[in-house]
Amino acid sequence: MNLALHVIKEIVEMALREDIGTGDITTMAVIPANAEASANFVMREPGVICGLPVLQAVFAAIDPHVHVILPIAEGSHVAPGTVVASVRGPARAILTGERVALNLAQRMSGIASMTASYVALLHGTKARILDTRKTTPGLRALEKYAVRIGGGTNHRFALYDGVMVKDNHLALLAANGVGLVEAVQRAKAAVGPMVRVEVEVETVADALIAAEAGATMILLDNMPPAEMAVAVAAVAGRAELEASGGITLSTIRAVAESGVNYISVGALTHSARALDIGLDFV
Amino acid sequence: MNLALHVIKEIVEMALREDIGTGDITTMAVIPANAEASANFVMREPGVICGLPVLQAVFAAIDPHVHVILPIAEGSHVAPGTVVASVRGPARAILTGERVALNLAQRMSGIASMTASYVALLHGTKARILDTRKTTPGLRALEKYAVRIGGGTNHRFALYDGVMVKDNHLALLAANGVGLVEAVQRAKAAVGPMVRVEVEVETVADALIAAEAGATMILLDNMPPAEMAVAVAAVAGRAELEASGGITLSTIRAVAESGVNYISVGALTHSARALDIGLDFV
Amino acid sequence: MNLALHVIKEIVEMALREDIGTGDITTMAVIPANAEASANFVMREPGVICGLPVLQAVFAAIDPHVHVILPIAEGSHVAPGTVVASVRGPARAILTGERVALNLAQRMSGIASMTASYVALLHGTKARILDTRKTTPGLRALEKYAVRIGGGTNHRFALYDGVMVKDNHLALLAANGVGLVEAVQRAKAAVGPMVRVEVEVETVADALIAAEAGATMILLDNMPPAEMAVAVAAVAGRAELEASGGITLSTIRAVAESGVNYISVGALTHSARALDIGLDFV
Amino acid sequence: MNLALHVIKEIVEMALREDIGTGDITTMAVIPANAEASANFVMREPGVICGLPVLQAVFAAIDPHVHVILPIAEGSHVAPGTVVASVRGPARAILTGERVALNLAQRMSGIASMTASYVALLHGTKARILDTRKTTPGLRALEKYAVRIGGGTNHRFALYDGVMVKDNHLALLAANGVGLVEAVQRAKAAVGPMVRVEVEVETVADALIAAEAGATMILLDNMPPAEMAVAVAAVAGRAELEASGGITLSTIRAVAESGVNYISVGALTHSARALDIGLDFV
Amino acid sequence: MNLALHVIKEIVEMALREDIGTGDITTMAVIPANAEASANFVMREPGVICGLPVLQAVFAAIDPHVHVILPIAEGSHVAPGTVVASVRGPARAILTGERVALNLAQRMSGIASMTASYVALLHGTKARILDTRKTTPGLRALEKYAVRIGGGTNHRFALYDGVMVKDNHLALLAANGVGLVEAVQRAKAAVGPMVRVEVEVETVADALIAAEAGATMILLDNMPPAEMAVAVAAVAGRAELEASGGITLSTIRAVAESGVNYISVGALTHSARALDIGLDFV
Amino acid sequence: MNLALHVIKEIVEMALREDIGTGDITTMAVIPANAEASANFVMREPGVICGLPVLQAVFAAIDPHVHVILPIAEGSHVAPGTVVASVRGPARAILTGERVALNLAQRMSGIASMTASYVALLHGTKARILDTRKTTPGLRALEKYAVRIGGGTNHRFALYDGVMVKDNHLALLAANGVGLVEAVQRAKAAVGPMVRVEVEVETVADALIAAEAGATMILLDNMPPAEMAVAVAAVAGRAELEASGGITLSTIRAVAESGVNYISVGALTHSARALDIGLDFV
Repeated sequence: MNLALHVIKEIVEMALREDIGTGDITTMAVIPANAEASANFVMREPGVICGLPVLQAVFAAIDPHVHVILPIAEGSHVAPGTVVASVRGPARAILTGERVALNLAQRMSGIASMTASYVALLHGTKARILDTRKTTPGLRALEKYAVRIGGGTNHRFALYDGVMVKDNHLALLAANGVGLVEAVQRAKAAVGPMVRVEVEVETVADALIAAEAGATMILLDNMPPAEMAVAVAAVAGRAELEASGGITLSTIRAVAESGVNYISVGALTHSARALDIGLDFV
Repeated sequence: MNLALHVIKEIVEMALREDIGTGDITTMAVIPANAEASANFVMREPGVICGLPVLQAVFAAIDPHVHVILPIAEGSHVAPGTVVASVRGPARAILTGERVALNLAQRMSGIASMTASYVALLHGTKARILDTRKTTPGLRALEKYAVRIGGGTNHRFALYDGVMVKDNHLALLAANGVGLVEAVQRAKAAVGPMVRVEVEVETVADALIAAEAGATMILLDNMPPAEMAVAVAAVAGRAELEASGGITLSTIRAVAESGVNYISVGALTHSARALDIGLDFV
Repeated sequence: MNLALHVIKEIVEMALREDIGTGDITTMAVIPANAEASANFVMREPGVICGLPVLQAVFAAIDPHVHVILPIAEGSHVAPGTVVASVRGPARAILTGERVALNLAQRMSGIASMTASYVALLHGTKARILDTRKTTPGLRALEKYAVRIGGGTNHRFALYDGVMVKDNHLALLAANGVGLVEAVQRAKAAVGPMVRVEVEVETVADALIAAEAGATMILLDNMPPAEMAVAVAAVAGRAELEASGGITLSTIRAVAESGVNYISVGALTHSARALDIGLDFV
Repeated sequence: MNLALHVIKEIVEMALREDIGTGDITTMAVIPANAEASANFVMREPGVICGLPVLQAVFAAIDPHVHVILPIAEGSHVAPGTVVASVRGPARAILTGERVALNLAQRMSGIASMTASYVALLHGTKARILDTRKTTPGLRALEKYAVRIGGGTNHRFALYDGVMVKDNHLALLAANGVGLVEAVQRAKAAVGPMVRVEVEVETVADALIAAEAGATMILLDNMPPAEMAVAVAAVAGRAELEASGGITLSTIRAVAESGVNYISVGALTHSARALDIGLDFV
Repeated sequence: MNLALHVIKEIVEMALREDIGTGDITTMAVIPANAEASANFVMREPGVICGLPVLQAVFAAIDPHVHVILPIAEGSHVAPGTVVASVRGPARAILTGERVALNLAQRMSGIASMTASYVALLHGTKARILDTRKTTPGLRALEKYAVRIGGGTNHRFALYDGVMVKDNHLALLAANGVGLVEAVQRAKAAVGPMVRVEVEVETVADALIAAEAGATMILLDNMPPAEMAVAVAAVAGRAELEASGGITLSTIRAVAESGVNYISVGALTHSARALDIGLDFV
Repeated sequence: MNLALHVIKEIVEMALREDIGTGDITTMAVIPANAEASANFVMREPGVICGLPVLQAVFAAIDPHVHVILPIAEGSHVAPGTVVASVRGPARAILTGERVALNLAQRMSGIASMTASYVALLHGTKARILDTRKTTPGLRALEKYAVRIGGGTNHRFALYDGVMVKDNHLALLAANGVGLVEAVQRAKAAVGPMVRVEVEVETVADALIAAEAGATMILLDNMPPAEMAVAVAAVAGRAELEASGGITLSTIRAVAESGVNYISVGALTHSARALDIGLDFV
C-alpha cells in the first residue's frame, strides 16, 4: 500500500510554512536569486531509506524548477555514503528546503529502519509487526507509511476506523456492572460490517470469553510468552491474537514463537530516533 | 518564557481531528453518553514533566465539562508513580482524549527530560544548551518550549527570525568566488537591527575572520574541544561561540570546558524518546 | 453510535459562512439589535426527526444567548404539527440561523425517514439496510448518522477505511490477466488486521470463488433474488453477503427473503427528498 | 453566466479530502501504480447533463496525467447511453476519483434536469423559474449554477446580497408595532443602491402596500393563481412579483398564467434526485 | 446596518496570528503571568470613533478574563482626550493585544472620520457618499462598515453581488463590435431579479443610451459638474446617477449640486490615514 | 532581501476570494469566454513602483494563460505615463483580476514611495529609516517588503521575533516596584542568543541605564533632537539608538543629524496613500 499524494502535499506545506514563514532571510540575503546548484542527499549511517516522495514534494512546493533524481528505490536497505537523492536547480530553493526535507526523511527513515529491525527477528514465525496510535500528532499518515515501508503492518489508523475496547473502557464498564461479553456485543451491534472489533485482555480466561463473544481480534496485554502460547491454544483460531506491552528487540522473538498473529510496538513511532542523512553540495 | 495559548489550541485541534476524525466509534458504542469518570495521569518512569497546559487544552477542546487538576508544577522533576494530572467528568471525553493527551505530553516530557540531562552536566561552566531546527514538523513551538522547560535555551525559531550562514551557503558562495567576509557583510546589510547574524565555521582561522567581519555569533562545527578553546581565546569575546556537531552526554562536559557560550544538540528534538506516562482510571 | 461534536461544528460553521457571509443584511436592517423572540420548529409532515444536535449547534454558533429546548428525542417518529425544537433569545440570531438550521435538519430527517421506510420492510428477516458512498460531498458524516438514526447500518465511511474491490477494479485487472482470486489476495496482503475486504461479483460462481479466496464480505450486484438465494446457500456463511443495485421499496422484501445479510440502498443519501419542517414565531 | 473556477476547485478538494482521506486503500492494494486505463461516463437515463467542468476538476486534482475529453456540451439534453465524458490515463486516479465525480455530476444533472422540466411548462408565459436558499450546505454555488444550466434564473445567493423581508421578520415587527411600510423603508434606508428589496406578503392588499412603500419585488406566498392575477393587476408593474409556496409540475402552468414575473421552486435544490450516470471502463 | 460577528472574529484571529505568532516574547519575559492592569484607549485627535466591537473582540480572543468597558457609542464624534474604551484584567493580555486593537481601530476610525468630512459637505443636497472596491485586501467588510459608521452608503461589496459594466468592459466589447446597448442587455439577461445593473459612461449621450437600455444605475466618469447636471436632466429619473473620478473635499459640493444621486470616493478606503488613538495604562 | 513566494500566493488568494467570491458576474455576463485582450498598467503619477511580483501572482492565480511582461524593475523611480506591466491573454481573467492587482500594487507603491521620500532626506547622515508594527493586519509581509523596496530597513517583524520593552511594559513594572534594569535583565535571561533586546526610554538618564543593563538597542521616544544628541554622546556606542515619535518629512533631517542610528516612522505603513496606477486596454 502506498501513500496518497494529497496527504504528502498537506504535510509538506504545513512544514514549510512553519520553517520558512515570512522568508528565509539568510538565503535571500547572501545567495543571488539566479544562482544554480547541485547537491546530494547522502546516508551518514546504514538503514532503510524512507520519505523520498516527501523529499521530492518539498522541493516541488518551493520551486518547480528544482529537479530531483531518485537513484535508489524507496524502502531500500542502504549503506552509509549512498546518494539517495540528487537535487539540481535554483540554489535558493535547495538551501531553503534542506532542513524540512531532512527533518521528514530522517524521521521516516528512522521509523522504517527500526521497523525493519523488528521484522527481521520474526523470520520463520507467523507473527507480523503492528504499529499503534502512539504517533507524532500531525504526521500519523507518514509514520504509518514508514512502518509499512519497513515491513510492518498497520493497525487501525485512528479512533474512527476500528473498534478497540481497551482496559480503560472495560474498567469503566466494570465499575458500572457491565462485563466483557456485553462490551463486545455493544460494539458489534453499533458498527457496520466493514469494521472489526478488538478487545484488550490480561488473562487467558478473558481472551476465551472475548473470542466467544465474537471479538475478531484480541490484544494480550503484557502477558508472558508462555501464557500467550496458552491463549493461542485456547482461542484456537476463533479470533486473531495481538501481543502488546513493552516488547523490545530482545524479547520479540520469544513473543513471536508463542504463536500470536501480531505484535504491536509503540516505540516504532513514539521513540524511533532520526536516521542520519546529510545534504552535500556538489 | 511561556507558551502562547493559541499555539497550543491550534496544535491540539489538529491532533484531535487526526485521531478522532468522524468519531471515536469504540467509545460511542460501548460507553453511555451520561457516564462519568475520574482518572489520573501517572509517571511510569522518572523525568521532567512537560506539557500540562497542552493536556488541559486537549480535554477543554473535547468537552468543557471535563475538570482537570494539576497538582504538580510544569517542569518538575518527578518520580515514577507521581500523579501529574487528574481528570474528572464525562467518561467518553476522557477516553477519547487519552491518546492525544499522552502522545503530546510524553513527547514533550521526553524532550524536557533529555534537555535536563544535558544541562545538568554544564554545572560550573558558562555554556548553555541550545536547540536546533531539527524538530518535528508542525510541533516546533511545543518542542522548543519543552527545551526551555528542561533548562535549555532556544536558538532561532525558524528561517525567518535569525540569520545563520551555514556551510552549504558558504560552499556555494565559494564556488562563485564569494568569501566569508563578503557573506557576513551581505547578511548584515540586508537585515534590520533586531536580527542577529551567525556564521558556521570549521577552523579557528575562519572564526577569527567571521568575528572581524561582524558576525555576532559563530558556530564551531565538529571541532575538537581543544581547538574550540583556541577559538575562544582568539575571538576573545568579539562574538559569541556555539559548539555543534554530534555532541553527546559523554562529550558535552569537555566541550563546555572549552569556554564556548553555547552548545547545540539536535538530538533534543529529533531523537528524544517519549517519556512513559499512563492514564489510570480511579 | 452517535455523532462527534467537532464534526457538527465544522459543518455548521461552513454552512453559516456560506449563507451569512458578510452579514444578513435584511435582519440587520429591519430588526433592532435588542429584540427578543420565541419560535418553534414544527413538523409539516410525518417522519423521523433527525438533526436536533445540528440545529442546536447552528444557534450556538451564531449567538450563545439563544436558548434551544428539545422536547422530542432525536430519531422519534413524529406526527405533523409536532414541535421538535423551541428557540428563544435574540430575534436577529433566530432569523439569521433559520434557513441553515432547516436546510440541515430537513435533509437529515429526509434521509432518516426514508431509511426507516426501508427498515420497516425487513421485519422478520435477518437483512440489515446499508448506506453507500453516494452521499452529498461535505455532508457524509451527517448523512451516515441520519441513516443510523433511521435504523440503518453504515457501510465503510470512505475509500480509506475499508476495502471494496469493485467491478471496475476487476475489469481493469482482468484486462491485465489478473483474476478475482489474486485481487482478493493482493487486498488481504496489503491491509492490516482491522480492515475488512469486500468484493463485488455478478454471478454465484464468482461469489464462491471470492469466499474461498478469503473475502469477508461479498457484494451481489444486480442479482435476481432467486439467484441471491442460491449464492446464500453456496457461500454458506463463509462470507457475509450484501445485495446491491436499484433496490426499491417494492423489491426489497423479496431481496431480504433471499437470506442476504445486508442490502445497500444508494437512494437513501443521493435521492432522499427533504422532510418539510417549518419555523413558526410565537 | 458561468461558474468561477476557484469555486469548483475548493469544492472538489473538499470532496476528495472527505472521500480519499489518508488514501484509497483498495486501489493502492490491487491496481499497480503504472497501470493505464480508459473509461466513459455514460448516461443511464435521459436528462440535462451538468457538472462537466467539475468532473474535469476532480481528475485534475487527483492526477494531472488523466486526460478528460468532453464530447457533449454542458447543459445538453441527452439520451440514455450517451457518453458525456471520456477519461484516459493512470488507472488508479480514474478509480479513485470515480465516486466523487459521479456524486457531484449526478446531483448537478438532477437539479438541471428538474429545472428544465419546470421551465418547459412556462412556454408562452413571461414567468421565469427561480431557485431559493434551500440548497445543500456547502454546495450552493454548484447548485445555483445547475439551475442556470437547466434554464432557471437565480434568486439572491445568500443573506448578504439581497434583502428579503420574510413572514417571520414581519411577524416579529408586527408584535412590536412595526408595520409593513416601515419595514420596507428601514430596509431601503439601510442598504446601498446596488441592493434590491423584496417583501413577502400573503394578501393582495399587502402586495399593494409593499409596492407603494417602494419594494422592488414582492413574494406572493401560497396564493391561489386567481388571487395572484388580481395582485398582478393591482400592482400594475410598480414591482416585480414572485410566486412561491409548494408549486409543483402540475400546478405551475396555472401559476405562470396569472402573470407573475417569477416562480420560485425550493424542490429544485432540496429534493431533486440524482440523475443516473455510470462509469464504464473500456 | 451592523457588522456580522463572525466577520469580526475571523479578521481578529488572522491579525493576532500575524502579530503574536509563536508568542509575545517581550511580555512573556518581563511581565509575570499573574499581573493585573487597567488601561484606557484615548483619542489623541478629534474624529469619529469606529471599531469598538473589533477592539472588544481582540481582547476576547486573547484572554476572556480581560474586561472591556465602552463608555462611548460607536460612531460618535469625539474630542481629543476622550476615553473610548477601558480594559481591565491580565496585564499580559492587554499588552499583547494593544497593537492589533489599535491598528484596526485607528484605520477604521480614520475611514469613518474621512467619510464624515465628505458627508458634512452634502447637507441640503440629495447626494449620498458611496465607497468603492478600492479597499484593503482582507479588510473590506470592516472598511465598508466604517464607511457606514461615517455616514456613507455602501456600493456593491464585490464582483459577485452587483453588475458594473466598466470602461474596460465596454472598450473590449467595442473592439469586438458590441455596443453599449447590447452590453446592458447581456447583463440584464444573465442575472437574476435581485441584482442591479450599473454602467459606466463618459458622455451625456451614453448616459441616455444606457438608461434607455435599462441600466438601473449609471456612473458618470470624470464629468464636469455642469455636464453632470445635463445628464441628470436628460436621464430624468429613469436611472440613478453616480458621480465618480477624483472628487475631493474641495470639489464635492459642486458635484452634489449637479443633482446626482451618489458620489463615490475611492480615497475613503485607499488613502484614509489612521486616526491617532493611544493606550494609557492607569 | 526579497519576498517569499508562498507569502505572496497566500495573500493573493485571500484577496481574490474576497473580491471574486462566487464569481465576477459582470464579466461572465458581458464578455465571451474566448475573448482575448492586451492591457497595460500605467503610472498616473510619479513614484517608486512596488508590487510587480504580486501583480504577476494575481493573474497566475486566476488564469495561467495570462501572460505578464514586466518592462521596469521593481523599485524603480518612474514617471507618470510609464508602463510598469503589460498583460495579454483571456479578457475575462484580465478584467476580473484588475482591481485586486491595483489594490495591492497601489498600496505597496504608496509605501515604497513615501519611504523613499524619507530616505532621500537622510543623505550624508548615518541614520536609517525603520518601519514599525503599525501595519495593515494581514498585509504586514507585503508592507515591510515595500519599505525595503523604498530604501528603508525593517524593524522586528512581530511580537515573536524581537524584544521591545515599551513604555507600557515599564509603567506596569514600575507600579509593581520593578525598574528598568531588572526589566532588561529579565528580557535577556529569557530569550536565546539570536534575539535582540530593545528598550524604550524618554530621558537621557534612562538611555544610559538601559545601555549599561545590556540593551542592544534603545528607542528614544519623542525626544527633541538636541536631547537625542546628548543621548548619542552619553551612550557612546554601547547600544544602537532609535528615534521615534511623530517624526515627519519636515523634522527628520534634524533628527538624523543628532547622530541616532535609526529613525522609525509609523506613517510609512499606517498612513501612506495609494499611488495612482491605472489599467489601460490596448
